[in-house]
Amino acid sequence: MGARELLPVESVATLSAGPKIRAADSVHRRPNSTVRIVRLSAEPSLVAAAYPFHHRIRVRFAETDAMGIVHHSRYLLYMEETRVEYLRHLGHPYAELRQEGLDYSVIECFVQYRQPLRFDDLVDVHLKLASATRTSFQMSYLMTVNDGLAPVVKASAVTVHGCTTAAGRPTRLPAWLGDLVS
Amino acid sequence: MGARELLPVESVATLSAGPKIRAADSVHRRPNSTVRIVRLSAEPSLVAAAYPFHHRIRVRFAETDAMGIVHHSRYLLYMEETRVEYLRHLGHPYAELRQEGLDYSVIECFVQYRQPLRFDDLVDVHLKLASATRTSFQMSYLMTVNDGLAPVVKASAVTVHGCTTAAGRPTRLPAWLGDLVS
Amino acid sequence: MGARELLPVESVATLSAGPKIRAADSVHRRPNSTVRIVRLSAEPSLVAAAYPFHHRIRVRFAETDAMGIVHHSRYLLYMEETRVEYLRHLGHPYAELRQEGLDYSVIECFVQYRQPLRFDDLVDVHLKLASATRTSFQMSYLMTVNDGLAPVVKASAVTVHGCTTAAGRPTRLPAWLGDLVS
Amino acid sequence: MGARELLPVESVATLSAGPKIRAADSVHRRPNSTVRIVRLSAEPSLVAAAYPFHHRIRVRFAETDAMGIVHHSRYLLYMEETRVEYLRHLGHPYAELRQEGLDYSVIECFVQYRQPLRFDDLVDVHLKLASATRTSFQMSYLMTVNDGLAPVVKASAVTVHGCTTAAGRPTRLPAWLGDLVS
Repeated sequence: MGARELLPVESVATLSAGPKIRAADSVHRRPNSTVRIVRLSAEPSLVAAAYPFHHRIRVRFAETDAMGIVHHSRYLLYMEETRVEYLRHLGHPYAELRQEGLDYSVIECFVQYRQPLRFDDLVDVHLKLASATRTSFQMSYLMTVNDGLAPVVKASAVTVHGCTTAAGRPTRLPAWLGDLVS
Repeated sequence: MGARELLPVESVATLSAGPKIRAADSVHRRPNSTVRIVRLSAEPSLVAAAYPFHHRIRVRFAETDAMGIVHHSRYLLYMEETRVEYLRHLGHPYAELRQEGLDYSVIECFVQYRQPLRFDDLVDVHLKLASATRTSFQMSYLMTVNDGLAPVVKASAVTVHGCTTAAGRPTRLPAWLGDLVS
Repeated sequence: MGARELLPVESVATLSAGPKIRAADSVHRRPNSTVRIVRLSAEPSLVAAAYPFHHRIRVRFAETDAMGIVHHSRYLLYMEETRVEYLRHLGHPYAELRQEGLDYSVIECFVQYRQPLRFDDLVDVHLKLASATRTSFQMSYLMTVNDGLAPVVKASAVTVHGCTTAAGRPTRLPAWLGDLVS
Repeated sequence: MGARELLPVESVATLSAGPKIRAADSVHRRPNSTVRIVRLSAEPSLVAAAYPFHHRIRVRFAETDAMGIVHHSRYLLYMEETRVEYLRHLGHPYAELRQEGLDYSVIECFVQYRQPLRFDDLVDVHLKLASATRTSFQMSYLMTVNDGLAPVVKASAVTVHGCTTAAGRPTRLPAWLGDLVS
């Protein structure tokens, strides 16, 4: 039995409304105005082999901070760059999708920072399309750096995306995207 | 099946390894190599009045992206700026803590993007110290923008932080910080 | 006699084409394909009193880098934020101008980094509209931080902007902007 | 009128104070409190073949802004990434230099934005070590994007760097670096 059933994740899914996609009909205004985290349900594997795609990124000096390590906000840039490369790899470049009037809002993101990244590290961002609904999908990520002997896990993450029209209205995922999950 | 699998929120605390503050070996010992999200357990209220502190930030043009809205990675910068102002408000400026050899790593973060932020928006970032352990604490956030009539909820978030020495070793929270929660 | 006459600035002005504004008719393809720096001719004063406007910005932690100081790219963000505040101060908010179909491309920028900025510094960005042509204008900047006794000069800078339509075509400056210089 | 006013490029070198590497008092001694731009004297060629090195960078979505083009501050990140790759190419990786207690402050930078960069563009950043003094050096840059037929010039730039100790004191360039110019 998956934790999903035990956690209040299921109910939450109907609660959270991402930017623009606002599935209003399924939003039950909770009486106590407390929102349950989390809609996201994907559980990123810590084994690189569980991911069908990866993309390598060199850490820029500008991405470090005065702690001497990569600032935690930059991980989102690495994940986005990897999504873009994954879509290109699938034959559906993001730029092309945008020209067709589709877009993918980020509705939620979750990152676990396990070990710091440093300047000049070569980060392998592993990506997997974890699940999809009619109008949204989840991606899970694993970031590793090879220390010379083996890949070392640095971070894991999940993002949830809503498919929208250019005007920001929720719309169905393209068929090819849903097909990847099933 | 251990309680760990059934109660991920609590048990995961022992599982997840933040940057620098916990050895990753407890992770690698897991048989199924799947890490449970999430350690974080705070549930950000959607009512601004539930937060004891807020800080107002004007959205910079450079923080927008080609979708015409604020890029999702920038929210982490707004949250960090608000943490810094909160510590100053408490009489314990972050710069001072760093000089004393303490630091606060970000171990986890979670953001729900509800409605987009736009250039020039005045964002009120509401902050609450949600919980604390001996060496870590959680902050919850609510971001609102006043549309002229009332505050509109734009995002909610949680960050988990580990208290470390300058060398990156986990260490006890300062007493004044733990006292804020109890 | 201004430096402008002594420098090869004049010829350069006709050469450089900013993003989108491309005053093609005045572009003489130089035979040796070497472009003269610089079009910009403003000379930022090092005296704060020479600037009619200033805006105070607190340095974010995320703006530092592993050298422990503010990354040199962030200064451009401070200058942009100050321009936006200056336009608001003049009663012509940038957001409003954009809605009216006007925009200001950055054609050139020049920064002299004199002393490092650090986390938590309160930076006063002094700004002056230095000069204007029919379709472009120059701003000069001085960044100071008060060390408790007096303002210390940290950086000076110049930006050159072209006024364009939303479609990116060069267009006349609004009258109120040209009037500020004369 | 001193030669300084007539030959700003040369004389200014003695005038301008970069971060950490030169005391600002020589500036404050100036009677008219006006600083001459510019120390930098390199003139970036517009012909890619004039550059001995280039590095290709893919524009990230997060680097665009609400104008739909790459924000002008990001160009500095592309230039820095290219410098780092150039040093690696020369067999003197930046990370190694920093471990040896050397660093390179950015003292000045100048960018001419000629045509906008866009999301997903493959930008070739051409780099040349343009000149060097005992303690500083200048790099010139050309950014091009191939439109399918030929490289199109998007921007040109110059940066001036001071060689410092880890403590921020000016120090001699390594011999191998000076040798590259002569």
